[in-house]
Amino acid sequence: MAKLGVGVVGVGRMGRCHAENLRALVPEAKLIAVADTDLEAARRLAADLEIEHSYASIEDLVERKDIDAVVIASPSKFHLSGVQTAAAAAKHILCEKPLALTIEGVDDAIAAARSAKVLLQVGFMRRYDPAYAEAYKRIEAGEIGTPVIFRSIGRDRQPPPLSFYKSGSGTLFLDSTIHEFDLARWLMKDEVAEVHAFGGTLACPELVQFGELDAGIVNLRFAHGAIGNVESFRQSRYGYDIHTEVVGSKATLRIGYLRQTALTVLSGEGVGHDVVDHFLVRFAEAYLNELRDFVRSVLTASPPRVTGEDARNALAIALAAARSCRDSRTALVAEETRAESMHSAS
Amino acid sequence: MAKLGVGVVGVGRMGRCHAENLRALVPEAKLIAVADTDLEAARRLAADLEIEHSYASIEDLVERKDIDAVVIASPSKFHLSGVQTAAAAAKHILCEKPLALTIEGVDDAIAAARSAKVLLQVGFMRRYDPAYAEAYKRIEAGEIGTPVIFRSIGRDRQPPPLSFYKSGSGTLFLDSTIHEFDLARWLMKDEVAEVHAFGGTLACPELVQFGELDAGIVNLRFAHGAIGNVESFRQSRYGYDIHTEVVGSKATLRIGYLRQTALTVLSGEGVGHDVVDHFLVRFAEAYLNELRDFVRSVLTASPPRVTGEDARNALAIALAAARSCRDSRTALVAEETRAESMHSAS
Amino acid sequence: MAKLGVGVVGVGRMGRCHAENLRALVPEAKLIAVADTDLEAARRLAADLEIEHSYASIEDLVERKDIDAVVIASPSKFHLSGVQTAAAAAKHILCEKPLALTIEGVDDAIAAARSAKVLLQVGFMRRYDPAYAEAYKRIEAGEIGTPVIFRSIGRDRQPPPLSFYKSGSGTLFLDSTIHEFDLARWLMKDEVAEVHAFGGTLACPELVQFGELDAGIVNLRFAHGAIGNVESFRQSRYGYDIHTEVVGSKATLRIGYLRQTALTVLSGEGVGHDVVDHFLVRFAEAYLNELRDFVRSVLTASPPRVTGEDARNALAIALAAARSCRDSRTALVAEETRAESMHSAS
Amino acid sequence: MAKLGVGVVGVGRMGRCHAENLRALVPEAKLIAVADTDLEAARRLAADLEIEHSYASIEDLVERKDIDAVVIASPSKFHLSGVQTAAAAAKHILCEKPLALTIEGVDDAIAAARSAKVLLQVGFMRRYDPAYAEAYKRIEAGEIGTPVIFRSIGRDRQPPPLSFYKSGSGTLFLDSTIHEFDLARWLMKDEVAEVHAFGGTLACPELVQFGELDAGIVNLRFAHGAIGNVESFRQSRYGYDIHTEVVGSKATLRIGYLRQTALTVLSGEGVGHDVVDHFLVRFAEAYLNELRDFVRSVLTASPPRVTGEDARNALAIALAAARSCRDSRTALVAEETRAESMHSAS
Repeated sequence: MAKLGVGVVGVGRMGRCHAENLRALVPEAKLIAVADTDLEAARRLAADLEIEHSYASIEDLVERKDIDAVVIASPSKFHLSGVQTAAAAAKHILCEKPLALTIEGVDDAIAAARSAKVLLQVGFMRRYDPAYAEAYKRIEAGEIGTPVIFRSIGRDRQPPPLSFYKSGSGTLFLDSTIHEFDLARWLMKDEVAEVHAFGGTLACPELVQFGELDAGIVNLRFAHGAIGNVESFRQSRYGYDIHTEVVGSKATLRIGYLRQTALTVLSGEGVGHDVVDHFLVRFAEAYLNELRDFVRSVLTASPPRVTGEDARNALAIALAAARSCRDSRTALVAEETRAESMHSAS
Repeated sequence: MAKLGVGVVGVGRMGRCHAENLRALVPEAKLIAVADTDLEAARRLAADLEIEHSYASIEDLVERKDIDAVVIASPSKFHLSGVQTAAAAAKHILCEKPLALTIEGVDDAIAAARSAKVLLQVGFMRRYDPAYAEAYKRIEAGEIGTPVIFRSIGRDRQPPPLSFYKSGSGTLFLDSTIHEFDLARWLMKDEVAEVHAFGGTLACPELVQFGELDAGIVNLRFAHGAIGNVESFRQSRYGYDIHTEVVGSKATLRIGYLRQTALTVLSGEGVGHDVVDHFLVRFAEAYLNELRDFVRSVLTASPPRVTGEDARNALAIALAAARSCRDSRTALVAEETRAESMHSAS
Repeated sequence: MAKLGVGVVGVGRMGRCHAENLRALVPEAKLIAVADTDLEAARRLAADLEIEHSYASIEDLVERKDIDAVVIASPSKFHLSGVQTAAAAAKHILCEKPLALTIEGVDDAIAAARSAKVLLQVGFMRRYDPAYAEAYKRIEAGEIGTPVIFRSIGRDRQPPPLSFYKSGSGTLFLDSTIHEFDLARWLMKDEVAEVHAFGGTLACPELVQFGELDAGIVNLRFAHGAIGNVESFRQSRYGYDIHTEVVGSKATLRIGYLRQTALTVLSGEGVGHDVVDHFLVRFAEAYLNELRDFVRSVLTASPPRVTGEDARNALAIALAAARSCRDSRTALVAEETRAESMHSAS
Repeated sequence: MAKLGVGVVGVGRMGRCHAENLRALVPEAKLIAVADTDLEAARRLAADLEIEHSYASIEDLVERKDIDAVVIASPSKFHLSGVQTAAAAAKHILCEKPLALTIEGVDDAIAAARSAKVLLQVGFMRRYDPAYAEAYKRIEAGEIGTPVIFRSIGRDRQPPPLSFYKSGSGTLFLDSTIHEFDLARWLMKDEVAEVHAFGGTLACPELVQFGELDAGIVNLRFAHGAIGNVESFRQSRYGYDIHTEVVGSKATLRIGYLRQTALTVLSGEGVGHDVVDHFLVRFAEAYLNELRDFVRSVLTASPPRVTGEDARNALAIALAAARSCRDSRTALVAEETRAESMHSAS
């Protein structure tokens, strides 16, 4: 079977993760090149992975004929233009979340992929985690009855570096809580209709200069009546902690774990164990499964499992949460997409 | 040492729990009598506990000179009149939550106790649970730094009997979530300033006739900026599940457990264990500690650890949550107490 | 219903536990008196519990006509004479383990109770713990198939006081491991036929003067072929840790827990919780259930659930383990009872 | 850097695991060829992994000049001849456990590698598991004081296929318990001096025809006085369960976990989760780390971390356990090596 030629755009921690996975662990793919505006960083990664080609821009990278698909892991604000460039070059696309920073942007990205007839998949990798995937399967099978309450918390051990905030990628609801919003839609098999959010910069004073939150909680009301709450927090100190719960009318599912190793220390001070420290550790398998699914979808001309529409709906919730938090009132998710409707209509 | 003579008013499951504890497990107290409008039920409990006196009303019970204090465990709507009757008879009072159903009512109860110079304690028994008490102590000691996020869920295995709803005691935020509101104030050492609630009757259709919710989630904003979320759910099916989390700037505390017995079954179907099924099991020790503390406070003329003001502040949050849920908007807790201010002023 | 008059012999930690339970928590019993060769200690306990009578010997105590039953919690070497004295006075008996220090002694104790027609129950209280009781019930119901492997560990946080060793009660296999031997027989529904033990004084050098072990492990072979291993350790430092496992051909049961409170602390150093620190905490409920069962058995003239024969069989295993450990060879349990057979025959 | 050319001998489940790891996950190695007496199976694996060469014997494979090292994963009885063949061809060797089936055989294997000046590493992969590695580090650092008790259980969900028994690889103590023996020596930093074993064919009647045990427990006495117990069981039904405990004079370490996914199901029947089902899942990371360490050791001319002497000492314990079990008596480990001493001396 011919391998899928892939290029990776952006060589930060996410881009590096995708590139390493492609290089070593996705046999149906061949990593051809990496690109980054920091060409030196792109070259270093290429050298580490023993691949030949590195570029200073996605424009240069997509010129290669042997590249069939690109993985976009640049800062969030460049996602939209990256998608447009790749689509224009007829490359299939796996783009990190958020697909764009506005509903209008997401719609442009979707339209670009559609008119170029390329596959567009979005990086909600948690759907590929074995525990989340198993939960979804059980909900589908009716094991928990009707889902009635959704809860999810996402806590980082420490915030991303300040450079991340400088690039504008660090908006809490759009960068972090958007994972919970995607899980909410996916696991509850329903759309979020209304949200209410409180937020604050409570533990990381260094974020005040960027006007960014480090903590946010969002109440959710789903279209069919179910309710929920999600939380994001940038600095738990104790570890990377992702826990999700779907309460159903018949049973309840909990997804999540704390421990990194299977070692317990018992002493006069009590009993203790360690905690997973980073999302690249917790979701290592999910990132790999995601990439494999993307490559297989392209090779078999199947539709992606996480679509541009998924990205759009999650973004609408995130924007509504941000608005609710700013105005201290309940926000309808539909209001976020009205402007876009007008835009599409015009 | 002379023992404290105590009467118990209301012989439902809570009244029975208090009466049994007083009879057998609080050596400084002597259970003298029980009262209930259902005199037959009062007589049965008296017989079970081998005590002599039972009455059809609190009015009759408080006439006894050998009764120094009463425990009020009647339906919520009779709490206020019970407190007033007991105070008028100069009896010390431990009253179940909620102390009254309105802020005005709570103020009347507090005033009655104050003018009669009797001790008035309110039944937020979770404060007496060893795990919660230990959490409080560690927060006081500064172990977690500044508390920044509060989370608490309270789930019953199944809703209380319909009779409970008929008596009007079953209002979710006032009857159940009020425990989370009290924990929020107590553990965060701060007041709740603003709330937002979503609710629904999602799992127990039989509650629709009473217009009562079976599920509610409430976002909290504290006066000093911290945020939080609490949930109440009437029918988890899997067990009685109380979990609370206080996230601090330095460390995080989790309180709660699921298991009733220490037995684990490992089989081809997986690994399983049981779950605590009822609040009287989970908080058996807390109820006893509460009663002992009450008796000791009276005997040593110390102030109660859970005051009428605590009841007032928790009720204000509950009423604001109910209003927020009804009007689908953020509610300021202070608005609930404004009417009362006017009332006090008049 | 007339209450059962009970006297407690020995006012160390176990005697005090039984006396307190009888005083407050066993409504069908009335604690009449306590006795101890240290009369002052007996008097103090009587005062604490507000009972009138205290004695310097079991002989004096059993003279009381209003005493129907005695609980023997004196040092192990006085158990046999205590049983004989109580039986001679026609008192029913609950005796702490071990019932006697030799098989011959156990036989004498059984014979004394039998000829006096009094009930004789032995203090293997773990059988009354809710988790162990539930495990037994499930094994009885066939849920795990045929039991094939038995494992049990028992660890104290720190060894008993040196006075305990001076009184001769501290022999590891007879004082501590005997609980595991009783569980082994009871849960496997089989007799132990053969044992092998290794032991050492590994963590508590202060025990060397008494020639006592602080650690022992014993391999077991059951009569029907199943195998097992038990461990006793006197100084875990981290807490009181009792864990038992019954591996069956269809499923496996685990009994045990570590935590004392439901509080978890999550910090940069990891995640930690506390540990149960003492057997009187871990088995508080078991001790109470045991006493209630004893009182009820006497009042209803039912046979005891833990008999002298149970004590005899557990002791035979303990003695065989001690012999195996001393001689570093496998020991047949039956050899321990041969001497006794000869004795009975004579 | 030049890559290490590697060949894999034996393409059963273990050989396939090593080959896949070498192909995809060990960048410093290049998988050149696989060999198996079942040439068709070798060809299939080569095709799956897209490598060119497959052979019907190790003799053919080691003729390749581009192969620097071999991984031996054939049935246990061929390990010794495989090592001798590879050593004769001057190939470095990673051999699965047991290195040979007799002490004499192990000594021959060691001698062959020594005279050929090739590196010989043995496949005790648990040492490379993150939790075990962390435990070792903490013991080294003195965190638990003096190790005094060692416990380890190893349970398979179901026994290996009958073909495994037919090949003679299925002897419980030599095939399975030998992992516990290696852990015992490594983590206790001491040698096992004396053992006692009970065993049985208790759950898998189909093993009786081979005269093989499905359950065994072994008491251990270490040279410096510490004691321990290990268990192997072939058919837990609930999952693959490896738990190890090192009790020290200051603290205790527990290594092990049960869960495969982070999903918990809570329902009216209780709370449940799944269990790791296979050693290739539980120790996937360990197998990979082991292979990476082997490749790095060869490339840097460092001594192996798990040596032929480690294999020899673990085998001596296994043989002593088998003897103890057969003769129902305590066995000295040194007796196993006496014959060999004589052999060496001759």
